[in-house]
Amino acid sequence: MLTETDQRLLRIAYDEARTGFDEGGCPIGSVLARGGQVVAQGRNRRVQQGDPIAHGEMDALRKAGRQKTYRDTVLYTSLSPCMMCSGTIVQFGIPRVVIGDTRNFGGNEDFLRARGVDVVIADDPDCIALMQRFIAEKPDLWAEDIAE
Amino acid sequence: MLTETDQRLLRIAYDEARTGFDEGGCPIGSVLARGGQVVAQGRNRRVQQGDPIAHGEMDALRKAGRQKTYRDTVLYTSLSPCMMCSGTIVQFGIPRVVIGDTRNFGGNEDFLRARGVDVVIADDPDCIALMQRFIAEKPDLWAEDIAE
Repeated sequence: MLTETDQRLLRIAYDEARTGFDEGGCPIGSVLARGGQVVAQGRNRRVQQGDPIAHGEMDALRKAGRQKTYRDTVLYTSLSPCMMCSGTIVQFGIPRVVIGDTRNFGGNEDFLRARGVDVVIADDPDCIALMQRFIAEKPDLWAEDIAE
Repeated sequence: MLTETDQRLLRIAYDEARTGFDEGGCPIGSVLARGGQVVAQGRNRRVQQGDPIAHGEMDALRKAGRQKTYRDTVLYTSLSPCMMCSGTIVQFGIPRVVIGDTRNFGGNEDFLRARGVDVVIADDPDCIALMQRFIAEKPDLWAEDIAE
């Protein structure tokens, strides 16, 4: 279930995505939160840093630094996590993921659920519209980011 | 099948692991190769950079930068890839993985094989001995790195 706290934190992930768009990057943002508070926020930096592993979720987790545990955290992402980020969610033991957009990309929700992750799909119109615009404007960059 | 080229490149991954050990980090190294040549080599830098996503494989992929394709690459790793790194191998479309040590850590080989990855287990005595020593000397750091 999507709470008001979720909506507030997902909005921060969207704002990160929007910043990435303005930088000419892939517009995908993420927030790692604990107890309704931001631990770290990040965005896809493939273009900005020439770093293929810097998806939004990975950037947020990197910025969060070494955490004693992730069992009490929630990961917010403007776009449904790819296989790299889904594997990371499972490896780190993050128990809950809130996704803004599963329409433009998805398919790993069942992988996450099968491993006990609570997956909440917000179906957020702003997240969806931003990705749609990006995919239309920069199809080659989008294909590169999802390794197609 | 493990070729002489594989053994040479796996040795570079081991040398990276050994460097990580000497730095006080988790001793796990990796090489991304194409046509028998090193594209990039890296090592786990959780301790050195305070970066929880900097596993050996991720560090090598980051250093390799943006690649047009990974379909013609091989990933070498001194230790069997965790779920984060296994998800990344699948996401990036890396078709072949050579693993030095599956005795001290493993379990994702079937996940990789089920997704079409050719997994070669070298069962390398040096990789195995280095991890054994690390786990015995720094059990807390090891537990943190695999999120236990």
